[in-house]
Amino acid sequence: MPSTPIHLLRGAFAALLCGAALVNPLVHPMAHAQGQAPDQPPASPRSPYEIIENAPASAWRSLAAQNTLYLDLPQGRVVIELAPRFAPAHSANIKTLAREGFYDGLSIYRVVEGFVAQGGDQSKQRDTGAGQRQLKSERFTTAVAAGDFTFLPDPDSYAPRTGFVDGLPAAFDPATGEAWLIHCPAAFAMARDDSPDSGGTEFYVVLGHAPRYLDRNVTVFGRVVHGMDVMQQLNRSRSDLYGTLAEERRNPILRLQVAADVPASERLDIQVMDTGSASFAELVAARRNRPEPWFVETPDYVDACAVSVPTRLQ
Amino acid sequence: MPSTPIHLLRGAFAALLCGAALVNPLVHPMAHAQGQAPDQPPASPRSPYEIIENAPASAWRSLAAQNTLYLDLPQGRVVIELAPRFAPAHSANIKTLAREGFYDGLSIYRVVEGFVAQGGDQSKQRDTGAGQRQLKSERFTTAVAAGDFTFLPDPDSYAPRTGFVDGLPAAFDPATGEAWLIHCPAAFAMARDDSPDSGGTEFYVVLGHAPRYLDRNVTVFGRVVHGMDVMQQLNRSRSDLYGTLAEERRNPILRLQVAADVPASERLDIQVMDTGSASFAELVAARRNRPEPWFVETPDYVDACAVSVPTRLQ
Repeated sequence: MPSTPIHLLRGAFAALLCGAALVNPLVHPMAHAQGQAPDQPPASPRSPYEIIENAPASAWRSLAAQNTLYLDLPQGRVVIELAPRFAPAHSANIKTLAREGFYDGLSIYRVVEGFVAQGGDQSKQRDTGAGQRQLKSERFTTAVAAGDFTFLPDPDSYAPRTGFVDGLPAAFDPATGEAWLIHCPAAFAMARDDSPDSGGTEFYVVLGHAPRYLDRNVTVFGRVVHGMDVMQQLNRSRSDLYGTLAEERRNPILRLQVAADVPASERLDIQVMDTGSASFAELVAARRNRPEPWFVETPDYVDACAVSVPTRLQ
Repeated sequence: MPSTPIHLLRGAFAALLCGAALVNPLVHPMAHAQGQAPDQPPASPRSPYEIIENAPASAWRSLAAQNTLYLDLPQGRVVIELAPRFAPAHSANIKTLAREGFYDGLSIYRVVEGFVAQGGDQSKQRDTGAGQRQLKSERFTTAVAAGDFTFLPDPDSYAPRTGFVDGLPAAFDPATGEAWLIHCPAAFAMARDDSPDSGGTEFYVVLGHAPRYLDRNVTVFGRVVHGMDVMQQLNRSRSDLYGTLAEERRNPILRLQVAADVPASERLDIQVMDTGSASFAELVAARRNRPEPWFVETPDYVDACAVSVPTRLQ
């Protein structure tokens, strides 16, 4: 460790500002009320791998098919879980567009290595049918309360508090009661023009180091829960700083579907770790200070984007 | 902005701890002494794209061929700049190994999406010749001083101070005088067993969100400056949490060479922005608070891994 563990001092300082909850261990207030048996503390701390591999069935949930998109690319299938509690209009609109086949045959036309991949109808020529091309932004919401969060105890440089809601990394401002999804890798969000209310069809996926400066500038409305390796295989632009691809290097979108519209036998059974579970709390603690003997220094800190919420394909 | 800009309070607090330099604008102490004309402040702040596209020739430097590796994979060439000031033994050893053909025909055998790609001689069967299989770690150094840094004014959650040295994101502890390279995306580092001094041949590249908890646990000794899109195309493991690939899905290493050993006509002319330049200082400021009208909120904060040091292929 550096001899000046500044994050500890900053944590203590943040606690003075924000109350004792910030320095409490990670505990979801609803975990016990929901009838989940708390894990017994293990005899010795377990590694993240051990925690994930041994998490009980109750620590996992399956995706709701009505809340899940399948983005089929030549490289494979990408599975996106939507976030209707944070962005109900954006979640509903993309389902409407998907059901009309709006995205089928369009492309992922902007890919910047380490930043984002963006797709849709760049030419704005295609009819949106019953869907909307422009939506009022859902950049933050007051419909998600502090009690809905599994908060991290750690301070964050971009938001007063961060944690997880419904498996999604999110932030909360106690002063305003506003909650918003944050730009961690795999975030699924809506591109727009200069007006905050000008996006509705052009989605993007965060590929690289969390571009947190985009937080609250755009509507994040989901997360890629399977197939980030597919997203990473997309052609990038090497000649255009903005990342727009020449026509012949664009990445075709074969199809975007709502999972509920796919025959049940053809759906992927993907499970996501419940971010309110005791297993997830143990995982966060192990990410903060890794217990394996390999580690000679531990930071006693973790940021929300460094705790990737586990998923598994059954 | 959230109504509680906690980072500002934390920044002020950090300034009390660490001295006024932390809240000064980003200025490299040597920029003027080196004869570089300071940029005139632009009439209006420029976007990162505009800054990079218009940076004068003096803001760019070419790679030194003796300090550059070419990692050739079936998907393309990856170019790595070594960091001999931070890790002289690791930098020299991998050049010795490359010149003996040690890596040629081996593989990148561990790839974890969003984390790292690791390659070398997992079986430990190959003769290292004059190279070393195990080196004393160079996890931090006292050979790089505060004056060598272009510091960020922003506080960091993992280190007392962060900034850039020789184009590489790095940290510094004023209390000990220790400097170390940090785990941003594209970091090139040496894997090891449990002993900190057990690594010498198995390199890895950071693929995803900065795994800063690895800082000071391992020796970082370079950065991929070209070809991260190639690294992202590698096969991942979807079945092994640790990421080890089945034999048939391993990613072959065609060749690892020192650029100086390649005929000059076949070298790539890659330039890296000088992190001591006025252009880089302007870029960091624009990354902290983006001036484009698109942004409706700005964080007044940036972390070192969110300032990717620009490179260009001439």
